[in-house]
Amino acid sequence: MTGHGAAVTMGGGPAFPRARAPMQTAILGATGLVGRTMLRLLAGRSWVDEPPLLLAGRRSAGTALPFRGAALVCRDAAAAEVEGVGIALFSAGAAASRQYAPTFTARGAWVVDNSSCFRLDPAVPLVVPEINAALVPRLLPGQGAAGGVIANPNCSTIQVALALAPLQAAFGLREVHVTTLQAVSGAGRRAVAELAAQSAAQRGDRAAALLAGDLAEPDRGVPPADSVFARRIAFNALPQIGDALPDGSFAEETKVVHELRKILDAPQLPVSCTATRVPVWNAHSAAVRVVLARSVSPADAAAALSAWPGLAVDPSPHGFATPAEVSGDGLVHVGRLRRDPCRDDALLLWVVADNLLKGAALNAVQIADLLAGAAPAPR
Amino acid sequence: MTGHGAAVTMGGGPAFPRARAPMQTAILGATGLVGRTMLRLLAGRSWVDEPPLLLAGRRSAGTALPFRGAALVCRDAAAAEVEGVGIALFSAGAAASRQYAPTFTARGAWVVDNSSCFRLDPAVPLVVPEINAALVPRLLPGQGAAGGVIANPNCSTIQVALALAPLQAAFGLREVHVTTLQAVSGAGRRAVAELAAQSAAQRGDRAAALLAGDLAEPDRGVPPADSVFARRIAFNALPQIGDALPDGSFAEETKVVHELRKILDAPQLPVSCTATRVPVWNAHSAAVRVVLARSVSPADAAAALSAWPGLAVDPSPHGFATPAEVSGDGLVHVGRLRRDPCRDDALLLWVVADNLLKGAALNAVQIADLLAGAAPAPR
Repeated sequence: MTGHGAAVTMGGGPAFPRARAPMQTAILGATGLVGRTMLRLLAGRSWVDEPPLLLAGRRSAGTALPFRGAALVCRDAAAAEVEGVGIALFSAGAAASRQYAPTFTARGAWVVDNSSCFRLDPAVPLVVPEINAALVPRLLPGQGAAGGVIANPNCSTIQVALALAPLQAAFGLREVHVTTLQAVSGAGRRAVAELAAQSAAQRGDRAAALLAGDLAEPDRGVPPADSVFARRIAFNALPQIGDALPDGSFAEETKVVHELRKILDAPQLPVSCTATRVPVWNAHSAAVRVVLARSVSPADAAAALSAWPGLAVDPSPHGFATPAEVSGDGLVHVGRLRRDPCRDDALLLWVVADNLLKGAALNAVQIADLLAGAAPAPR
Repeated sequence: MTGHGAAVTMGGGPAFPRARAPMQTAILGATGLVGRTMLRLLAGRSWVDEPPLLLAGRRSAGTALPFRGAALVCRDAAAAEVEGVGIALFSAGAAASRQYAPTFTARGAWVVDNSSCFRLDPAVPLVVPEINAALVPRLLPGQGAAGGVIANPNCSTIQVALALAPLQAAFGLREVHVTTLQAVSGAGRRAVAELAAQSAAQRGDRAAALLAGDLAEPDRGVPPADSVFARRIAFNALPQIGDALPDGSFAEETKVVHELRKILDAPQLPVSCTATRVPVWNAHSAAVRVVLARSVSPADAAAALSAWPGLAVDPSPHGFATPAEVSGDGLVHVGRLRRDPCRDDALLLWVVADNLLKGAALNAVQIADLLAGAAPAPR
């Protein structure tokens, strides 16, 4: 490997981390929305001494991305030399993770993988640092870490898990039911462009026609060919995220179910989820109904949530955040805390977070913080 | 009363309805989105012989609206003479309903009220014709009806109730949990214009900035002064519909809870609801989780739903409708029918309907159909 600074020998060689040990990082999938966000976050980490090695598929190789005032050129992942990488952040999809993770771990690197590839592997920790940081090994002097994979959870799952963990710790969980309203940024750069193009095409004319009594939309929600989304996403709502699975769910819904159980270490917890895509640029929302092990007042729930790291809680009876206001913010915002009208042991809440930050890049970089022996930074 | 055709005497005078008895109708709130839709639907009813009397607040009086090729001028409700009206459709808000309903019913008219004013009054039927048409009196010859109020349910409630009624009849209901994604048309004409204006202001620039890594939105979701919605609605999602109530809910959520129980004649049914506003022009969506009295397969549920009038069921494992495609359509569309992953007696479903049609104007006109002795038309 060339051009990305001094190598750190894992499992031998110089003690690591030192006060200013050089730490070589890498990002696989660097040109995507999440990859770019990872790069920006790494630029702010004091433990990141060297410019990260940027890797992507062949089509994106050659792309230059900014890092601390310099321009880093993205390399073809298939051709790059990864010897000496200590921590690699992956966000290039499950197939790329499956292909490249062994290459990195065999050379002693830790892979923080944002794909679904390893999340449910019993041997792989699934980590939200505010919940289960203890599962992350520290790359301590003399520990001789041989490398491995740590999985970064699904974006919607992270924010719901973080809103549930304090309630689980304080009151115990009996059931969790989730409906998500997810932003297009979670589907990548093309999806953002698609919402913009469809919105521009639709917008003023449609409102005028509707006000004139023309209820039927001319395109009936059918998108142009080669669209990212199966239906028009502009001014619409789609209960379809991820692949269709045999049980009638789409993959995102099943991810929320299984990943929540794993993160909360509650393998039998009843969880249901309906995941929807809405025409929001960035930041996911979730309406959550949680049945607790005992009767809990909204005030007591707010107190438990407010004391937990990583959460911003609006304890006022009707307070809430919206996606537009939390985009760019690393915290998980909890509001609309109220009792289920039918039972005292159930609460309803509204959970909003930036899916590119806490839902993906920030959570991964916080895991990297832990690996590097640093406390996870809140942004 | 002048200029709206021959009067029909209720509770005396000529027998009514005759085969072609002249039926005088009226619309209060005729210039709103729902009022205009009511007028369009009445134009297609064979039992509507005379042009409806159009009424509105003083600001909207004088507005001309099309009816069967003619232009009807809207009158000031405070100054109009209503003697002789047989059926009046109200959609001008609860305060107007409270003010004007006695004026009409005292003169023998039936008021079909689309406001929340009378919905929970035990003496007032709350009607979705496909569920409880039997509660609507027929204006039969010699019956001498003295007039009265029939309430049209809340828009979200109608579509969820219609999706639940067949399941209740076939399998029994134990619990219902609803998350709505509601269109701006439900908030009126200004709301539609607001989404158009905000979308035009936001659109292309925001996508480009997001793709360049600028996650924080410049306006942080704060809308211009005098906006209909408390936060920016374009490219956003707001868990706030209706007034704030002491229990932490907003009014729309409590309407769904109480109106569902009344329509389904299940006063103890546990219901919870989170109602959200999304940047969709027209047609509401609802993610519904229903616990039944026994284990039910999605196929059996689809069969029960498909046999019910007023519903369009997609029985395929992953099939669903979206708001953009059902806008202008009078049916309630049910899809995403699947088992709760944790229990065999619970189902998840996705319910979409045009809130101006079945959620408001169409349901009201179908009630009027019943009053007039006609079978409710499906559109």
